[in-house]
Amino acid sequence: MPPPDNLTSEWDLINALNREFGPAPAGVILSIGDDCAAIEIPGPDYLLWTVDTLVEGVHFDLAYTTLAQLGWKSLAVNLSDIAAMGGDPGPALLSLGWPPDRDRREALEFAAGLAQAAREYGVAVIGGDTVASPGGLIVTVTLTGRVPAHQMLRRAGAGVGDLIFVTGPLGEAAAGLKILQQGLELPQELQEALTEAQLRPRPHLRAGRLLAQEGLATALIDTSDGIATDLYHICRASGVGARIPAAAVPVSPRVTAAAPHLGCDPLDLALFGGEDYLLLFTAKPAVAKRLPASFSRAGLTAPHPLGRIVTGDRVVLATSAGEVDISGQGYDHFRLDLRGDAQ
Amino acid sequence: MPPPDNLTSEWDLINALNREFGPAPAGVILSIGDDCAAIEIPGPDYLLWTVDTLVEGVHFDLAYTTLAQLGWKSLAVNLSDIAAMGGDPGPALLSLGWPPDRDRREALEFAAGLAQAAREYGVAVIGGDTVASPGGLIVTVTLTGRVPAHQMLRRAGAGVGDLIFVTGPLGEAAAGLKILQQGLELPQELQEALTEAQLRPRPHLRAGRLLAQEGLATALIDTSDGIATDLYHICRASGVGARIPAAAVPVSPRVTAAAPHLGCDPLDLALFGGEDYLLLFTAKPAVAKRLPASFSRAGLTAPHPLGRIVTGDRVVLATSAGEVDISGQGYDHFRLDLRGDAQ
Repeated sequence: MPPPDNLTSEWDLINALNREFGPAPAGVILSIGDDCAAIEIPGPDYLLWTVDTLVEGVHFDLAYTTLAQLGWKSLAVNLSDIAAMGGDPGPALLSLGWPPDRDRREALEFAAGLAQAAREYGVAVIGGDTVASPGGLIVTVTLTGRVPAHQMLRRAGAGVGDLIFVTGPLGEAAAGLKILQQGLELPQELQEALTEAQLRPRPHLRAGRLLAQEGLATALIDTSDGIATDLYHICRASGVGARIPAAAVPVSPRVTAAAPHLGCDPLDLALFGGEDYLLLFTAKPAVAKRLPASFSRAGLTAPHPLGRIVTGDRVVLATSAGEVDISGQGYDHFRLDLRGDAQ
Repeated sequence: MPPPDNLTSEWDLINALNREFGPAPAGVILSIGDDCAAIEIPGPDYLLWTVDTLVEGVHFDLAYTTLAQLGWKSLAVNLSDIAAMGGDPGPALLSLGWPPDRDRREALEFAAGLAQAAREYGVAVIGGDTVASPGGLIVTVTLTGRVPAHQMLRRAGAGVGDLIFVTGPLGEAAAGLKILQQGLELPQELQEALTEAQLRPRPHLRAGRLLAQEGLATALIDTSDGIATDLYHICRASGVGARIPAAAVPVSPRVTAAAPHLGCDPLDLALFGGEDYLLLFTAKPAVAKRLPASFSRAGLTAPHPLGRIVTGDRVVLATSAGEVDISGQGYDHFRLDLRGDAQ
C-alpha cells in the first residue's frame, strides 16, 4: 500500500496507523477513534483502557509547572478519558522517562503528585517502567476502567436535533496557560483559579457516571483539544453537524475578566483553547430538560447548553456577522507552532 | 517522608516510587516488581498488563535500526513480559512520540513492523496516542494478556535446590548490538543471525504457556537485562541465592564464534548483555527431568540448564579461579554510560 501523500494532522496520522493495524478482532468493542478502547471481559462490564503521553516542551514546561503538578495532571488527563466513556477508573501503570541529568529525587515529587490524584479518584498505580530520556522528561500513564456494557457512552450516537452541553465553563485552562507562559500577574483570585485550571485539571468522573447510569447522553467526549475540535470528533463519529450560537458559548466569567490582561478574545480561548477536561455531550431534547434536576440530585452543577446537532458534517459557529466553519480548529498536538500562542 | 539519600539504580527508583504509590488494593494480584501487573477480573483468568517505553538514543539507534524493525521490537519486548507470566497476549495500545522534523510517512513503516509482530503473535493494536516529541522518537506500547489464575508464574517462587534453566542460548542480542554499533562485517550467517537477534527478538510465548500449563516452573522471568540481573530479580523476589558454574552458561556458539571479531569475552555477553528475550526459570529437580520431553512434545527446543538455586541472597558465578558475585551486574537503563559498550 503506498503511503498517503500527506499526514498533516494528528487525525490523518491516526487514521493511517489504524489502516496499518487492520480491523479489531471480536471481543474488541471500541478501538482507535474514541477516548478509550473497550474490551469484552467476563461479567457485565467492558474493560476500558487508555494511554496518554506528556512530553516536556510540548505538553508541559517545568519553568512554571512543579513536578507534583505534572504528576497530578498525568493521571488526570487519563481519568478524563475514562470519564468520557461514562466509566469508573481502575488501576494505572506509569512509564517514566527521566533525563539522566535531572536529580532522581525529584521523581518522588512527581510521584507524590500522581499519588495525590490517585487517592482523590480511588485509583491504584500498580507498576510500570522507568527509562532514561536524554531529550527531556516524558510521562506515559496508561489507565484501565470499567463501565457496565449497556451504559457505555461513546463519541458516536449524536442525532440531529440533539442539544449539546458541556459540564463546566470554558477557556480557563487556556487562559491559565497564557498567564503562565507570559509570566503575567493578574488579580490574585483570577490568577490562582486560572493557573490551577491549567495545572491541576479535575476530571469530571462523577458527571460521566451520572450520564451513563441515567442514560442521559447520546454521545460523550472530554474537552481536551478545544471544543471546536472535540465537538468535531463527536460529529465525525456520529455522522452529523453541529451549530453553536456564539452568544451561547459558556465562556468562563473568569476568562472574560482575564481577557483584557491576556490580550485575546475570551471566545477564542473557550472554543480553541483546550485542556479544560470537562465533558461535552449531546442529549435528546426531552432528556435535556431533566439534566438540571439529575445533576442537582447528584450534587453537581447543571451542565451548560451550547448549541444543537444539525444535519451535515461541520461544526459551525453562528455569529452576528454570519456563520463560520470552526470544524477541528484548535490546538493539534503535532502543530507545535500553534502551541506558543494557544488560543 | 524525606527522600532517600540516593537513587542510583533503576531498582532504587522503582522501590521509592512504589513506596510513594502505597500498597495495592484488593483485586490487584501483582503490582510493581514483576514482569507484568496482574489484576482480578470476573472468570478464571487474571488480566496481565505491562508497559514498555523505548527512547531514541537509549534503547535504539535509527542509524542501524529500520523503523519497521523498531516497530517489531516495540511489541516484542512487551510480548516477552506476557510470556514471563506464562500468559497469552491480548490487545495492545501504542503511544507514539514523533519528532516534528521527521517525515510522518515513516510512521507507517514503523506501524507496518509493529503490525507484522502483532499478526505473528495474534495481537491486535486497538488504539493509543500520538504526540510530538522534539527530543527524538519515543515508543510506548502497553499490552494486556490473560493467564489462568492458578497457572500464573512470577519471579517469586524459586526454592533452594531448584535447577535454573533458560530457553535459548545467551548473548546473541548483545553481540548483535556490538556489530551494529561498531559497524562490523562478520561472516554473513553470523552477521545476519546476531543482528537479527538484536533487532527482531522473538519472544518465547509458547515456552511460557507450556511452563504455566504443565506447572513446570517455580519462578519465571524474561531475559531483558542480562541474566546476572534477571536471575537476581528472581533471587530477590524468592528470597534465595543462585550459583552458576561458568562452564554451564549456555553461551550461544554464534557468540563464541563472533567474539574474536568483537574483541570481548563471550561469557560477558552471555551474562551481562541482555535483550535476548528468552525465558529464565527455575524448576524442582524431579520436574527438571521431564523438561526435555515436555518441550519436545510442544515442538520446542529443550531449555538449557544453567545452575542451581542456593541459600543466601546473591547470584554467584563459580569459575576455576573462584566465586564471583555478579548479582545485578549488567545493563541498567539509567546507567547510560554502560550502554556504549554493553557487555
